[in-house]
Amino acid sequence: MSKIQAAVMGYGNLGRGVECALAQNDDMELAGIFTRRDPATIRPVFDSSRVFHADQAIAMKKGIDVMILCGGSATDLMTQSVQFAADFHVVDSFDTHARIPEHVAAVDAVARKNGTLAILSVGWDPGLFSLNRLFAQSVLPAGKDYTFWGKGVSQGHSDAIRRIDGVENAIQYTIPVDSAVEGARSGSWPDYRTREKHVRECFVVAGAGADQEKIRREIVGMPNYFADYDTTVHFLSREEFEQQHVGMPHGGFVIRSGKTGARQENSQAYEFSLQLDSNPEFTASVLVAYARAACRMAREGAAGAKTILEIPPHYTSPRELSALIKELL
Amino acid sequence: MSKIQAAVMGYGNLGRGVECALAQNDDMELAGIFTRRDPATIRPVFDSSRVFHADQAIAMKKGIDVMILCGGSATDLMTQSVQFAADFHVVDSFDTHARIPEHVAAVDAVARKNGTLAILSVGWDPGLFSLNRLFAQSVLPAGKDYTFWGKGVSQGHSDAIRRIDGVENAIQYTIPVDSAVEGARSGSWPDYRTREKHVRECFVVAGAGADQEKIRREIVGMPNYFADYDTTVHFLSREEFEQQHVGMPHGGFVIRSGKTGARQENSQAYEFSLQLDSNPEFTASVLVAYARAACRMAREGAAGAKTILEIPPHYTSPRELSALIKELL
Repeated sequence: MSKIQAAVMGYGNLGRGVECALAQNDDMELAGIFTRRDPATIRPVFDSSRVFHADQAIAMKKGIDVMILCGGSATDLMTQSVQFAADFHVVDSFDTHARIPEHVAAVDAVARKNGTLAILSVGWDPGLFSLNRLFAQSVLPAGKDYTFWGKGVSQGHSDAIRRIDGVENAIQYTIPVDSAVEGARSGSWPDYRTREKHVRECFVVAGAGADQEKIRREIVGMPNYFADYDTTVHFLSREEFEQQHVGMPHGGFVIRSGKTGARQENSQAYEFSLQLDSNPEFTASVLVAYARAACRMAREGAAGAKTILEIPPHYTSPRELSALIKELL
Repeated sequence: MSKIQAAVMGYGNLGRGVECALAQNDDMELAGIFTRRDPATIRPVFDSSRVFHADQAIAMKKGIDVMILCGGSATDLMTQSVQFAADFHVVDSFDTHARIPEHVAAVDAVARKNGTLAILSVGWDPGLFSLNRLFAQSVLPAGKDYTFWGKGVSQGHSDAIRRIDGVENAIQYTIPVDSAVEGARSGSWPDYRTREKHVRECFVVAGAGADQEKIRREIVGMPNYFADYDTTVHFLSREEFEQQHVGMPHGGFVIRSGKTGARQENSQAYEFSLQLDSNPEFTASVLVAYARAACRMAREGAAGAKTILEIPPHYTSPRELSALIKELL
């Protein structure tokens, strides 16, 4: 069978991650990177990758089996996914939790009308974490769920620090509290306050002459972002920052502590975790697996907007179902 | 909607687990326990549970939406699942890995002919562990898989010890080696020999006058079962045994250590784990969730034999898809 031709729409960290992930999947090929910027200004990861303007995508429709939408949830995806689902099978990583139902409904209407298939809100959270919350609740109806994030970089929190007067650069790590993770596993169903589950650690480059204590107070007292957490602030030089804080690690834990038995006397701990050196590259890898699923299901006639909760798992694999049953089951 | 009427075929530890699990699921009801023994000799977990002879099942077909087959893989399921799939939607936990393809094919033929749906080899391994191996490989094509089992009771190994002359009772725990689990997570892709991944710990009640050193040597040297492992043997009294070794704990870890990036420079650790106080009750809980999925998919017209790799995840939940998307995604 010919290789799946996958296109990348939007070329930031996620788009670069998809470009890399496609190179790891023998049954798929990069049909092109599409950008709203001037294609000549884009330097792809691989010299062989071709870059086009977003406006050219429609004209190249025939050579594209699936469009992997790599825009941001805040500004791009609610319009982009609807727009591209009219012409392409699409996958996106839309992660504004509160607006997912609305997003799915909007894309579904377009996709059904045009006979395309969209798989939306794919990644790790939403995505693999959501899947595990579902399986854990289905299997252990008597139980309590815990989600921990980190150790990882929060872009939103890092941005919030960077907006403070006198801050030159900053990064914020969300770190789960070990004792809370242990408690979640314990079967004793503890309730944790926000402060007890995660701590926040900030690394800040202050500008020359800036008042570090004032910056520290402004960070730890910031409502919504830091006030509800135990927050540590470290100041360091620009050189130290650039050496020690490259990369975008993230990860986390989904834990369900369940009880079974006639009197619910047995504890059953279900746990899923990720420890990621690169958050965008992992999200991209999940997107690519579900881009494959979208193509395979579309070939069988599926259309409309779906989520990861609805996709038969084997469609994510390049391998024959019979081989999966034989070797993985 | 009326409750799903689920029947239990075979009443050992797994059947009792299913009886308990059904009581935790408000959308399901126990239609009856079926046994090949004299029903009058069976004492169910709950007084309200009705027990029938296996031969009565066919006559009660109309009141049964799904048959949960709780026989053993060694002797029962290869014939039972084929037999009952002619008349019922069924789920089983067939776990003889090497014969799963053959089992699926045999049940599929009968189920397709009769318009029934079977979901086979459901549990945690095969089952949830298999699902996680699939997702991890699909998402991280460049990677290495590790499975660890335990700490848990191996019935086969316990039985093997009990067959030794002079042994009155015995239990064997399989225990993963912590440093190997750490190595699997590390991203360094270590290769482990059998001996390096798990140790075996045995608790033995010796008969009066038995030669304990001879029993110990016989255990640790037993080919296939113990010879390839570091095995510890503890002798204890019958009273100590009965106090300290109740329950059937088990669990384990599925870990995939993947690499992403242009030069595969980033490590991405995917991990799924279970720590179970009761292995049969957890397996039963998975069976019940997939019994629900079988009913829901059969209502939509699905037929044939399927595995956990093929079931859209949301069918395992009693909840509406729209609620799952809103609350779990």
